[in-house]
Amino acid sequence: MQKVRDGKGWWEPFDHLLIATGAVPLCPDVPGADARGIYGLSTLESGIQLRQRLDADKPQQAVIVGGGYIGMEMAEGLILRGLTVSLVEKEPQVMNTLDPDMAAFVSEKLRKVGVNLYLEESLEGFEVSDGQVRAVATDKRTLPAELVILGMGVRPNSTLAADAGIPLGEKGAIRVNERMQTEIQGVWAAGDCVQSYHLVSRRPFYVALGTVANKQGRVAGINLGGGYATFPGVVGTAVTKICELEVARTGLQEKEVQRLGLEYVIAKIEGRTRSGYYPGSGRIIVKVLAEKGSGRLLGGQIVGDAGAAKRIDVLATALHAGFTVEEMINLDLSYAPPFSPAWDPVLIAARKAAGLV
Amino acid sequence: MQKVRDGKGWWEPFDHLLIATGAVPLCPDVPGADARGIYGLSTLESGIQLRQRLDADKPQQAVIVGGGYIGMEMAEGLILRGLTVSLVEKEPQVMNTLDPDMAAFVSEKLRKVGVNLYLEESLEGFEVSDGQVRAVATDKRTLPAELVILGMGVRPNSTLAADAGIPLGEKGAIRVNERMQTEIQGVWAAGDCVQSYHLVSRRPFYVALGTVANKQGRVAGINLGGGYATFPGVVGTAVTKICELEVARTGLQEKEVQRLGLEYVIAKIEGRTRSGYYPGSGRIIVKVLAEKGSGRLLGGQIVGDAGAAKRIDVLATALHAGFTVEEMINLDLSYAPPFSPAWDPVLIAARKAAGLV
Repeated sequence: MQKVRDGKGWWEPFDHLLIATGAVPLCPDVPGADARGIYGLSTLESGIQLRQRLDADKPQQAVIVGGGYIGMEMAEGLILRGLTVSLVEKEPQVMNTLDPDMAAFVSEKLRKVGVNLYLEESLEGFEVSDGQVRAVATDKRTLPAELVILGMGVRPNSTLAADAGIPLGEKGAIRVNERMQTEIQGVWAAGDCVQSYHLVSRRPFYVALGTVANKQGRVAGINLGGGYATFPGVVGTAVTKICELEVARTGLQEKEVQRLGLEYVIAKIEGRTRSGYYPGSGRIIVKVLAEKGSGRLLGGQIVGDAGAAKRIDVLATALHAGFTVEEMINLDLSYAPPFSPAWDPVLIAARKAAGLV
Repeated sequence: MQKVRDGKGWWEPFDHLLIATGAVPLCPDVPGADARGIYGLSTLESGIQLRQRLDADKPQQAVIVGGGYIGMEMAEGLILRGLTVSLVEKEPQVMNTLDPDMAAFVSEKLRKVGVNLYLEESLEGFEVSDGQVRAVATDKRTLPAELVILGMGVRPNSTLAADAGIPLGEKGAIRVNERMQTEIQGVWAAGDCVQSYHLVSRRPFYVALGTVANKQGRVAGINLGGGYATFPGVVGTAVTKICELEVARTGLQEKEVQRLGLEYVIAKIEGRTRSGYYPGSGRIIVKVLAEKGSGRLLGGQIVGDAGAAKRIDVLATALHAGFTVEEMINLDLSYAPPFSPAWDPVLIAARKAAGLV
């Protein structure tokens, strides 16, 4: 019989324990970070507080720190509410899960909708008066701010597990097997606190996304209930939108492929979301990476107008199947003018890659 | 050296010959079928003529014979132009490539947008005066008609090949191998005139769709040019829309599975195209068939609002991969509220099927 202790000192016996402690947002270790008006947005409560603030005080100037998914989505939300929005990102691009050339489309869109984008600028601190944030200081400038959104990413909330001696892995996430068992008998874990397995790199991988957490929770639940289920791993799929621009990615991006030491080819095409002559046809750019020689699909990225992004699911499914780009050329995907050109743009990209491997 | 003869009696020598004669529309063998005002719509010219007629005479009453893709799309087009549209279909349902329960959503939509739908009625003839069609006679009624659209399907245009002694297969389509070679040395064929291979039923299959023809043409072209390419086959994917209703199908439908003598399970779910709370979230119904025991995915059908149909491509790709529904549960598909619920509806259907196999 094992036991856990709660904060007040009670011990609770268990046969099986599930750790589902999630993730904690990364907070900057700079002066003023605890001021009013700075929102981490990692909890529902934090979101409600922000919304109340927006409704009550009608602030006009917002600064977002971090150009990831949360930063993008908040930029859209605040621009649509009429605020002046600045976004500070320490890397030379937004959305580090995209290759720089694909992230450039996102930056272009952000600027077009009016976001003041400051790339390669580091957060140095916050100016505060009366406990309320007044400005954000970067290494290059000071940006007036009535409110600040922190979108700097998360880390697995694995302190409890670590304290209990449960082995951690990638980025401090809890190590689990396919059934979501930790390395300690009777202790299970699932969600943003655990390490996943990347089916393309065949390496441990940390990803904090609702869709993965949800699937892992189902697997852990079935196993805890006496059933049998496995979660084989992820291929790194994600999607978002910035106003009208849809953005999606799956598999490995260039820097990950390089890190693995694989030789690869790049195929990048621009096509249309529908038949070119059909009303509402929009732009779509598809980039595909494939292993040199074998032709194995390694990853894909898509940006474009309405209807572009969900096509990433074909690439994700192909990654699960371990398809080569050659095998993808003749995939029997759906075609009718309101939905696609006769060759889906994803297949055109695969076809181009197959000619290069 | 082989030779072909043109209509005027010339003989043209060839090393390689490609037959790309396409398909011919099925025409009813009933009185009046050659009257003015009856359109087969199998050629661009026929489409242009119809449009000129619509613009010039402003006809008000149209009858469509046949409830397949062409019939559906013409019904939409004519309703949007303000015509009174009747549709006659001899089967008890429209869209025979869908199971009856899924086709029922299409019938419902057709009626809702104002199409007069006559199911289980056979065409008996056309009433004609002054060479112009005036009405369509079925076995149950007479429908006044200023114009008639025939959407009764096509058959492979394989007469030339048959006359030359080239073996035909399914529905009289030209038999070809994966490289698009007929059984006669030096003679190739591609497009709507050839027989395909169905990767799910593992049987010969005839399908006349632009996307398949286009892929086959590429393969034939590469091989004719001295290269090497193959077209492995199709999984039977198709998509269309009837006003706002999107409709898609892939793989085998129930009657095909029954004909093969396979035991199967059905999972049918209703979900949302986006997260339920997100603006623009619409209805989606996904039906999945899987082999009893093995759990192998056999087919899928989707009807729903904007964003529903293109999800069929995930099922099509899974069919190419030979996935079981169990293997599909954890597919790492993209999720963000504007694009999908956390579990994509396609995965919810697969998950339900996995619980039944």
